[in-house]
Amino acid sequence: MKIIKPTLLLDKAKCQSHLNRMNAKAKASNTVFRPHFKTHQSAEIGEWYKEAGITNITVSSVSMASYFARHGWKNILVAFPFNILETDSVNELPIMTEVILTVESVDTVKHLGRNIDRTVCIYIKIDTGYHRTGLAAEDNKKIVDILDETGNYENLKFAGFLGHFGNTYNARNKKEIKQIYQDSVEIMQNLKETYLVQYPNLIISVGDTPSCSIVENFEGVDEIRPGNFIFYDLMQCQLGACDEQNIAVALACPVTALHPDRNEIVIYGGGVHLSKEYLLNKNGMKSYGKVVELNEKGWGDPLPNTFISRVSQEHGIVKTTTELFKTFKIGDIIGILPVHSCMTANLADSYLSLDNRVLKKIRS
Amino acid sequence: MKIIKPTLLLDKAKCQSHLNRMNAKAKASNTVFRPHFKTHQSAEIGEWYKEAGITNITVSSVSMASYFARHGWKNILVAFPFNILETDSVNELPIMTEVILTVESVDTVKHLGRNIDRTVCIYIKIDTGYHRTGLAAEDNKKIVDILDETGNYENLKFAGFLGHFGNTYNARNKKEIKQIYQDSVEIMQNLKETYLVQYPNLIISVGDTPSCSIVENFEGVDEIRPGNFIFYDLMQCQLGACDEQNIAVALACPVTALHPDRNEIVIYGGGVHLSKEYLLNKNGMKSYGKVVELNEKGWGDPLPNTFISRVSQEHGIVKTTTELFKTFKIGDIIGILPVHSCMTANLADSYLSLDNRVLKKIRS
Repeated sequence: MKIIKPTLLLDKAKCQSHLNRMNAKAKASNTVFRPHFKTHQSAEIGEWYKEAGITNITVSSVSMASYFARHGWKNILVAFPFNILETDSVNELPIMTEVILTVESVDTVKHLGRNIDRTVCIYIKIDTGYHRTGLAAEDNKKIVDILDETGNYENLKFAGFLGHFGNTYNARNKKEIKQIYQDSVEIMQNLKETYLVQYPNLIISVGDTPSCSIVENFEGVDEIRPGNFIFYDLMQCQLGACDEQNIAVALACPVTALHPDRNEIVIYGGGVHLSKEYLLNKNGMKSYGKVVELNEKGWGDPLPNTFISRVSQEHGIVKTTTELFKTFKIGDIIGILPVHSCMTANLADSYLSLDNRVLKKIRS
Repeated sequence: MKIIKPTLLLDKAKCQSHLNRMNAKAKASNTVFRPHFKTHQSAEIGEWYKEAGITNITVSSVSMASYFARHGWKNILVAFPFNILETDSVNELPIMTEVILTVESVDTVKHLGRNIDRTVCIYIKIDTGYHRTGLAAEDNKKIVDILDETGNYENLKFAGFLGHFGNTYNARNKKEIKQIYQDSVEIMQNLKETYLVQYPNLIISVGDTPSCSIVENFEGVDEIRPGNFIFYDLMQCQLGACDEQNIAVALACPVTALHPDRNEIVIYGGGVHLSKEYLLNKNGMKSYGKVVELNEKGWGDPLPNTFISRVSQEHGIVKTTTELFKTFKIGDIIGILPVHSCMTANLADSYLSLDNRVLKKIRS
């Protein structure tokens, strides 16, 4: 395929290497690997996980569950505080698909119990310190209320506690990430201990890409759910979860204007392709992505001091050095390593693999 | 249609009022109104403009030009530094559609002239102070080079100068916006004066929503191209271009979790629905949107001190007051006024009008 407009390139070899590494770590720890599919949202990429022996997946919406169920997945966790308005959509999921929903209120369980007409498993969402959502682990009153309410309905099966250690994204180094992981796992393990007598099969499910990338041993954790690790991105590099060489997606963008007076290059590729997530670079300047040269094998290392300094809807403004500026010309195609690959992938209609295959996504 | 997940509601009456007001101002000033369609990206919404007598439109990509040409638009400006890799795509646009491309380099004109096999009009992009892209108005050397190169090809017709006063988005009040408009228009007019003898039909085309909303009289400007005005948003309110009551789109979002300890409400509606654009509110806190109550007629005024304080991919975290917190329950649907409606609309698959009709978009 000839690239003529912003196109999300994907390096399958890198993805598979990330997948195999995470899978091997989980196996060695005797931990179920239930990868999050919100990052890639692609049935074709999903097949690579199947080939690696993975059978259980995580998604972030009922719509995504429906898409992946249609593509043969038989065990799907919706890791989002369940939206009771979608109860009928859950009823419509293939009956052969095992569905796990996440809850954190009695009201949700009550509505679900009264309106669900299939068996679903229930995870209770626990907040271990990120404070986005979930119940505090020490809130035994609420936990017991939910467990009791769940017990009232034959179609609801309590299966365990779910934590997402999103506070690892605020950590400043690997050591802090490891500490957050250890502290949070301890909270989850204590919770398991408390309820294990009553629910001998209950599990604890955790996982975020920073800690799952940095921690080598998941022993004591029943299930991990990282998602971003399949692509990685500049944010994960900044956290120490990967190197720039690991990033498996790059947005190919045509060069459309040159501004030699300020060493700026205008590319076709903006907020509607990359999203407007940014990092601060060493000089405190916003960076919406780093620039790489595309080649036959994919792409090289980021060019020094060359980054997207501004984005509008379709425009990206690349700042570079006087030296490098001279190497760009109108009609070139350059690669952009994304700040947050989940957001960039969400905006793409499909992927183009390095062997020139279009990989379809949920919206293709 | 029953709303069960994030859905972009659209108030047609507000849109039509904005459309009629802008149209009337342009007519009274004897200025061509060439609205930017990147904001709504919808053929069905486009029909409202046709009914208002509009025949010329602006888009930001060749793909969008192709979509609107298929829906009967016969005069389309692509307001983006032309991407020469899409020359064949321009050749494929319906021959009955008049196409205007934007250029700012001799290289682009050369490639276009040699490879285009239909007549296209050419605007030269001028930078009047925003410094995103375009030639400085005083750069007569480059302008003349482009004009000369354009003259070498029968298929290329120079039609005028295009400016986008995007620096109005950095203004602090209406007075500053008016000043930027006046200064920038003066630059464009001087340019027109300089080249009018040689090109007696040349026009100047300008336009951004802040200045087009605030300026009452466009006399001396041949063409205006605002886009966002059809919906408006919180950013435009902050600039003084509209009131909150004017905002014509709201994202309907289900309430999925409640956190009484911190007066926070978790909604299904995050960065993949709203984008991650934010404004700073009075307390210096990030706001990704304001909350409105939905009712039969649409929605009411924003609830006091109630806003989205954080977004992840699918989660939005609403901060509210102790008083108001009590009024929310799991399964409610609340409305979110977006920070930047162009980005939010780009993420939607379609719109739901208040009379319960689904309006399709480019991606529907």
